Amino acid sequence: MRIFPINKPCVIGTMGDPAGIGPEVIGSSLEDVQIPGEAALVLVGDTELIERYLPGRYSKKDLNVISLKEEISLDPSRVNIIDPGPDLRDRSPGLPTSEGARKALNCLFTSVAIVKALPDASRAGIVTGPVNKSAIASISPGFIGHTEYFRDSFPVEHTTMVLAGDRLCVSPVTRHIPVADVPTKLTPALLAVTIRDIVANRKFLTGKDDPVIGVSALNPHCGEDGTIGREEIDMIAPVVNAEREQYKNIIGPVSADTIFYKALKGDIDIVIAMYHDQGLAPFKMIDFDSGVNVTLGLPCVRTSPDHGTAYDIAGRGVASSVSMRNAFKLALRALCI
Amino acid sequence: MRIFPINKPCVIGTMGDPAGIGPEVIGSSLEDVQIPGEAALVLVGDTELIERYLPGRYSKKDLNVISLKEEISLDPSRVNIIDPGPDLRDRSPGLPTSEGARKALNCLFTSVAIVKALPDASRAGIVTGPVNKSAIASISPGFIGHTEYFRDSFPVEHTTMVLAGDRLCVSPVTRHIPVADVPTKLTPALLAVTIRDIVANRKFLTGKDDPVIGVSALNPHCGEDGTIGREEIDMIAPVVNAEREQYKNIIGPVSADTIFYKALKGDIDIVIAMYHDQGLAPFKMIDFDSGVNVTLGLPCVRTSPDHGTAYDIAGRGVASSVSMRNAFKLALRALCI
Repeated sequence: MRIFPINKPCVIGTMGDPAGIGPEVIGSSLEDVQIPGEAALVLVGDTELIERYLPGRYSKKDLNVISLKEEISLDPSRVNIIDPGPDLRDRSPGLPTSEGARKALNCLFTSVAIVKALPDASRAGIVTGPVNKSAIASISPGFIGHTEYFRDSFPVEHTTMVLAGDRLCVSPVTRHIPVADVPTKLTPALLAVTIRDIVANRKFLTGKDDPVIGVSALNPHCGEDGTIGREEIDMIAPVVNAEREQYKNIIGPVSADTIFYKALKGDIDIVIAMYHDQGLAPFKMIDFDSGVNVTLGLPCVRTSPDHGTAYDIAGRGVASSVSMRNAFKLALRALCI
Repeated sequence: MRIFPINKPCVIGTMGDPAGIGPEVIGSSLEDVQIPGEAALVLVGDTELIERYLPGRYSKKDLNVISLKEEISLDPSRVNIIDPGPDLRDRSPGLPTSEGARKALNCLFTSVAIVKALPDASRAGIVTGPVNKSAIASISPGFIGHTEYFRDSFPVEHTTMVLAGDRLCVSPVTRHIPVADVPTKLTPALLAVTIRDIVANRKFLTGKDDPVIGVSALNPHCGEDGTIGREEIDMIAPVVNAEREQYKNIIGPVSADTIFYKALKGDIDIVIAMYHDQGLAPFKMIDFDSGVNVTLGLPCVRTSPDHGTAYDIAGRGVASSVSMRNAFKLALRALCI
């Protein structure tokens, strides 16, 4: 594949599983998202499905449809649609196929190739539609999810996960591990790199120059001076104090049963949580429908809606595109801020 | 002390630390709380402070003021005020004294004595004002808090903690322990007794006959079929299934990042959380001001506002009495349902 780069910020939307709600929510989210003149839009997926759901304001002449057999020559002034194949025999919504899983995986591969071909990867944002992880794993053993795929493709050692919603923004330091493993996997180095990723990306995440970053405690009542665990004293406070030398608006450790109250009131803009459910339970409670999953630490930014393929409602025109719309908006803000 | 019992449900309010906001929030909460004719009200504390903050509708003839030197003869038709001493030399708000801590402790002792003197302890409810734990511990070594004091005074082996707010009701199975200890302290027996306490008290906690009780998972994504921890498969599901034999409206384990969303929507009435912050972080985020702390498992019910002494604002007339008012209302509902 030969890709002719463009010298412009580039938002790349990948369709996800063709039988899921990805194609339709990408289409309807673009009703609300205006791609500014200084950025280019690339949609990687099934041409027929993408065209089916694209907003009516786009006519044929607005589209630059590229087959992967061709060289890829992006047109910064049109919607670039790249179809990486295979050509689908079945496009029935709600009925996943291995062919569809293959296509979803090809979309990811292609989006990485485009980013790598750009003169400056940091001026690209990938917005991913939902995939069927186990279906992809069955044709590509070892596939765990988007985050791991991108981490290994670029490759990078560490990524930071952020959930950004209408009301809260949280980043869990440890993620998909048992609670029993949290105290050993939570290290000063991991906490520090997470704080640095958040500090480096704070402006596009919050829209503010100097947002307040709050670091949660691990133990109840912030460890109560060491009587309910010592991680606050031995690790979290020293790391927070050290990172505050670089960016002053970091507070913590803050008791987990207070930090989300303060965040919801607006006193804290980004909460760094010590483990998955500490951050995601409060987050999903109030930002379930609006949440965007952001991956930091890649050469480009990556955003995705915080929902799955939703096969049960695919193709019925009832899926909410709020989360996908916010994912596009956040990627654009990362590039154009 | 000799106490003549009454054969009527009895709500007993203890003042808490006299220098804190306890006396004033008890007084102002009684502006909104009507004690029904079938229940008696007892306030245990400093007579002068209680009278200072009582609503204007109570005149001298409505009060039955009892000194602890006398025999205690409760009057079911008046506000019974019991002063256990010592007579305070200083009643300045915001200035804690060891004499005040002594009096707060005497109030707890007296409230337990009253409950024990009643013909049926289950027809009593204790509503506790906030105390200064370390001040009491300095005059009574070993004092940890209200819950432990009542547990040891009656005595009982196990108590269940519930936070009941305007929008959420949660009960953490493990409480003030380090996160590192949660997987070992979380046992099938502890989970089962917590579920049983919740089932037994479900009506007054929710106001519903058949509320939905949701039991949270421990690990992220409900353990993802055992790949992120096995507690869901090995312990939580079997216990939930067994307890469902006694009460059908129990669901779980439910992923922690979904259960609070469902609870806030109204699909789950009570959430049983596996550890302190899993329940309290979402709870305090949205029910910070309205929350009531309920102790189940004692011979009587015990409720308290979910705030401390707040010395910094004591006596200034700005303290919110919402939580204390809800604590009285919930105790009354427990007795009169």
